[in-house]
Amino acid sequence: MKRTIACLLGLLLSSFVHAQNIELPAPHKTGGMPLMEALAKRSTARAFDARELSAQQLSDLTWAGLGISRPDGKRTSPTAHNSQEIELYVLMKQGAYVYDAAANTLRLQVAEDLRAPGGKANAPVVLLFVADLAKSTEPAGEKKNLAVVDSGFVSENIYLFCASEGLATGYRISGIDREALSAKLKLRAEQVIVAAQSVGYPKS
Amino acid sequence: MKRTIACLLGLLLSSFVHAQNIELPAPHKTGGMPLMEALAKRSTARAFDARELSAQQLSDLTWAGLGISRPDGKRTSPTAHNSQEIELYVLMKQGAYVYDAAANTLRLQVAEDLRAPGGKANAPVVLLFVADLAKSTEPAGEKKNLAVVDSGFVSENIYLFCASEGLATGYRISGIDREALSAKLKLRAEQVIVAAQSVGYPKS
Repeated sequence: MKRTIACLLGLLLSSFVHAQNIELPAPHKTGGMPLMEALAKRSTARAFDARELSAQQLSDLTWAGLGISRPDGKRTSPTAHNSQEIELYVLMKQGAYVYDAAANTLRLQVAEDLRAPGGKANAPVVLLFVADLAKSTEPAGEKKNLAVVDSGFVSENIYLFCASEGLATGYRISGIDREALSAKLKLRAEQVIVAAQSVGYPKS
Repeated sequence: MKRTIACLLGLLLSSFVHAQNIELPAPHKTGGMPLMEALAKRSTARAFDARELSAQQLSDLTWAGLGISRPDGKRTSPTAHNSQEIELYVLMKQGAYVYDAAANTLRLQVAEDLRAPGGKANAPVVLLFVADLAKSTEPAGEKKNLAVVDSGFVSENIYLFCASEGLATGYRISGIDREALSAKLKLRAEQVIVAAQSVGYPKS
């Protein structure tokens, strides 16, 4: 009886913990706007509607930015010497998550709305580009420099996805409370917040 | 008679000078691979076939990277505060050019093959991302940082165009003889060579 209760409690607990993560539906790897049209429509927005994105949009958005596109684990965006040092954090009303590309899951880091320190409280999604410099194989003086360019690759994919999807987006290096976010997200010293990118429907 | 000869000579000279530039055909602003497929196919290549690109491909390639997409002069890739500090140099066998987006023209800088100092003598096209820091409105300490990320935006557009077009490409910050290129291209001190990107058909 004790074992049954412990087992049931365990199941309850695991389903509770499980529910904190967001298991994303499979991303669309086909379709979308023809590339040249997406390039023509790409633009930067700074104002957003409060309307939230669907789970499918979150899946497509994160995959477009940093998804695994090949059997060897390589991504939709390049990194210097394939160091894959860029991590994508997803700040939403209900909490802050990190994108686990292999599991196609947003893993809850803290059940708290961190969009304001992310610099855009009124966008439904604020992405943070975090570089884990411990993963970089570059010379010490080049690690940050390459993390910055690597964030640009990811960001441009997201720009084009948003153009294709009718969403608004804007990359920023300013307006980010890096100290507060690093503490809340329990980042290690080697994890550097490079930039942020807000995503949402255009403000109507 | 003297005037007629002078006039004819002038015409000859202008047509000669003119012939040095490459006036590109209008870029395709529609078509291309559906975005999600281009993202899935994007990859980095380091080996290239010697086959040259067509004028149409050069036009589409440069427009995808840094073309003017809107009546206000904004581009297919963003720059911090729209400073548009990134210039795209195109190194080919017959010479080194700079992309003039407004005129849709490659302007000859020097009739010399600079692909070897650009780091990839065997690619038909080596692009150089040159940041004119004099155009950047960022604080002095941020100018270079932002030029680096801005080059990433342009580069990713080119990666996706190449994926769509069946071309091979790879971004590099290494293997570039910046000193030799700066001298040959007569760059000012504020014009910094950020990176290079080779483009060509995949090596068969």
